[in-house]
Amino acid sequence: MISMIGVAAAALTTSSFLPQIVRAYRTKSMGDVSRYLMSMFATGTVLWMVYGIFKEDLVIIGANATATAFNIILLYMKVVYKAKPAKVA
Amino acid sequence: MISMIGVAAAALTTSSFLPQIVRAYRTKSMGDVSRYLMSMFATGTVLWMVYGIFKEDLVIIGANATATAFNIILLYMKVVYKAKPAKVA
Repeated sequence: MISMIGVAAAALTTSSFLPQIVRAYRTKSMGDVSRYLMSMFATGTVLWMVYGIFKEDLVIIGANATATAFNIILLYMKVVYKAKPAKVA
Repeated sequence: MISMIGVAAAALTTSSFLPQIVRAYRTKSMGDVSRYLMSMFATGTVLWMVYGIFKEDLVIIGANATATAFNIILLYMKVVYKAKPAKVA
């Protein structure tokens, strides 16, 4: 029961970055998204993974590994989509 | 040591939404931010709070209470800043 809540919580917070990735991919625009959101969040989820390893909590480890990956993708998109107009000009 | 890592992790992932709030407040623009990011994330952090309560983990409870609040603020901004141009037109 408790781990089911944890898995549901992890699934929601982690997969919440997917629609943002899809939106960014479609619009090729990340101007309104703060780079600090992704960079701080990804650094934090790496620390959450370390915390999860110490606590031997697979839900925390798995959720934050995925969230780290998603945020690195978004940070990459932020950099790439900003660089594109500069090349055109 | 373990809880210090947890507190640092919590501080980073939670406060990562602050620069997004500041940016949105300054630009009054949330067009590139997916509403699903905040709505799914906030639902997830509420479940994380429940998980934290079951696990009696104050770091998880505190971090997710704050993250929920920040994401509700961002979701509100998303709605308000989208509504504004419609009023002008």
